[in-house]
Amino acid sequence: MTSSNASAVPAEPGSLSAARADAIATSFSRQGLMTTFGASLRRVDRGEVELAMPWSDGVTQQHGFFHGGAVGALADSACGYAALTMVGEDEAGLTAEYKINLLSPAQGERLVAVGRVLKPGRTLIVAQGDVYVEQDGRRKQVATMLMTLCVVKTLGHV
Amino acid sequence: MTSSNASAVPAEPGSLSAARADAIATSFSRQGLMTTFGASLRRVDRGEVELAMPWSDGVTQQHGFFHGGAVGALADSACGYAALTMVGEDEAGLTAEYKINLLSPAQGERLVAVGRVLKPGRTLIVAQGDVYVEQDGRRKQVATMLMTLCVVKTLGHV
Amino acid sequence: MTSSNASAVPAEPGSLSAARADAIATSFSRQGLMTTFGASLRRVDRGEVELAMPWSDGVTQQHGFFHGGAVGALADSACGYAALTMVGEDEAGLTAEYKINLLSPAQGERLVAVGRVLKPGRTLIVAQGDVYVEQDGRRKQVATMLMTLCVVKTLGHV
Amino acid sequence: MTSSNASAVPAEPGSLSAARADAIATSFSRQGLMTTFGASLRRVDRGEVELAMPWSDGVTQQHGFFHGGAVGALADSACGYAALTMVGEDEAGLTAEYKINLLSPAQGERLVAVGRVLKPGRTLIVAQGDVYVEQDGRRKQVATMLMTLCVVKTLGHV
Repeated sequence: MTSSNASAVPAEPGSLSAARADAIATSFSRQGLMTTFGASLRRVDRGEVELAMPWSDGVTQQHGFFHGGAVGALADSACGYAALTMVGEDEAGLTAEYKINLLSPAQGERLVAVGRVLKPGRTLIVAQGDVYVEQDGRRKQVATMLMTLCVVKTLGHV
Repeated sequence: MTSSNASAVPAEPGSLSAARADAIATSFSRQGLMTTFGASLRRVDRGEVELAMPWSDGVTQQHGFFHGGAVGALADSACGYAALTMVGEDEAGLTAEYKINLLSPAQGERLVAVGRVLKPGRTLIVAQGDVYVEQDGRRKQVATMLMTLCVVKTLGHV
Repeated sequence: MTSSNASAVPAEPGSLSAARADAIATSFSRQGLMTTFGASLRRVDRGEVELAMPWSDGVTQQHGFFHGGAVGALADSACGYAALTMVGEDEAGLTAEYKINLLSPAQGERLVAVGRVLKPGRTLIVAQGDVYVEQDGRRKQVATMLMTLCVVKTLGHV
Repeated sequence: MTSSNASAVPAEPGSLSAARADAIATSFSRQGLMTTFGASLRRVDRGEVELAMPWSDGVTQQHGFFHGGAVGALADSACGYAALTMVGEDEAGLTAEYKINLLSPAQGERLVAVGRVLKPGRTLIVAQGDVYVEQDGRRKQVATMLMTLCVVKTLGHV
């Protein structure tokens, strides 16, 4: 039927061009939702991105924990930016779909999402996101995500 | 091995007790994230719930469309409350996991999510969420979600 | 960032070219797994395909019901062929991923899977699969699937 | 709302009671689909199970590779038995749902699936499945699965 759209080489976190790192920082700063969440880029490596956001009243579900939607949104952004570290300079990654399992109530001072490219490809990228809460210096996993992104040509900024 | 945890009767939207409708309205008003989003309960029927939120700068991705995370969070809440219309008075539904496909860019004045119970059960509930943008009186689908919830006993409010 | 890869027109089941119907029948007959399952093409319309397979000892789980893997495999093929009805003559659809919820034990004489294209696109296709058991002339839903396919150019047969 | 259904301790592969190992071997031997596939239990540890099946004409898609449905079915069984290593003697795990990403064409002599419990719980278990092809002594990943199982009481054998 077809040729594979996936390269044979798994992503290993590595260094990133300054241009791409700048493009990601700019793109992130333009995401109104990340600003609303008070989220920040903690780490941007080739194939792996870490985001964090503090707890606040504005991101809760009805019992005061982080809302599952905030957990999903942070993981979504982390996976999306991880994919963006692996594509060409004139390309971007569009989220096609994701699945997330919520493993534990998201109760803590801070939410941290680590997005990691599992399989880079010319057409599709598969990424994994793991979300943790941090409390008193300890980290506990609260969710895991599996995402498919579609690589698209961009006309301007990512 | 086992007994089925699912009833044989598919959910048909229907009327809801006043007590359960009140409990859902109260729970929704306590979700800080829904308040942050300016989201509202448009319709609460037995087995089906509709939520809406207006576009604002605070819920965007980098090109000014609704962020995929906002799309996911609204669908998440719609499915969760749809499940809550189908459980006993001393029960609640915890989101175990969901998968969402983003079908089109979420560009419009308003985001609307309709959550609907596909399969009620004593232990698990399966729900479907469909998300639309509304613009100039027209509605376009932008995402579809499939969610599994776990029925749990509650000690107090849902 | 990007242009949408999805057309605005939802798939409506409709008629199919004879050439494409033949290509699908030929492809199906080459799937060793479908032959092993004794599966058959019941209906092939534009955007929608129905497959069926009889119960046999060779497709069971440990209690004699249809194995969840057989349920998934039949839905997988139904969605894949549904997608194949919507692409160009020199194109095929590769399964990128799917999620399936098993709703009830798959106990019956026959398993039937209906695949339906939810969103056709130039790059990606989203399809839904619903699986039923038939017993004594009655049909009961046992699973629902949501699948993403990637459209690829083919050099020869699909 | 609720109490967590998940224990705080991640699964570490470990030793298994002889009774539970026997029960798993017996259950596996009763799965007609696994017999049809010529599949075997390669390894059964607490929290982790490995299955293998040889290539044959009877498990192919239309180009002679392993059918995606066979890939999914083997991963499904591996995750299911991994869950079964973590529940009580009078309990079993029912597959509620899974998502699978197909990463590369499944072309090789043998398919190997490794199921691993990510999060054990009293009510729900989350498992991950990774599927590989083996060819000429080399192993290549072809798929990854994320599964949710529901813990149920059993009356007899699992």
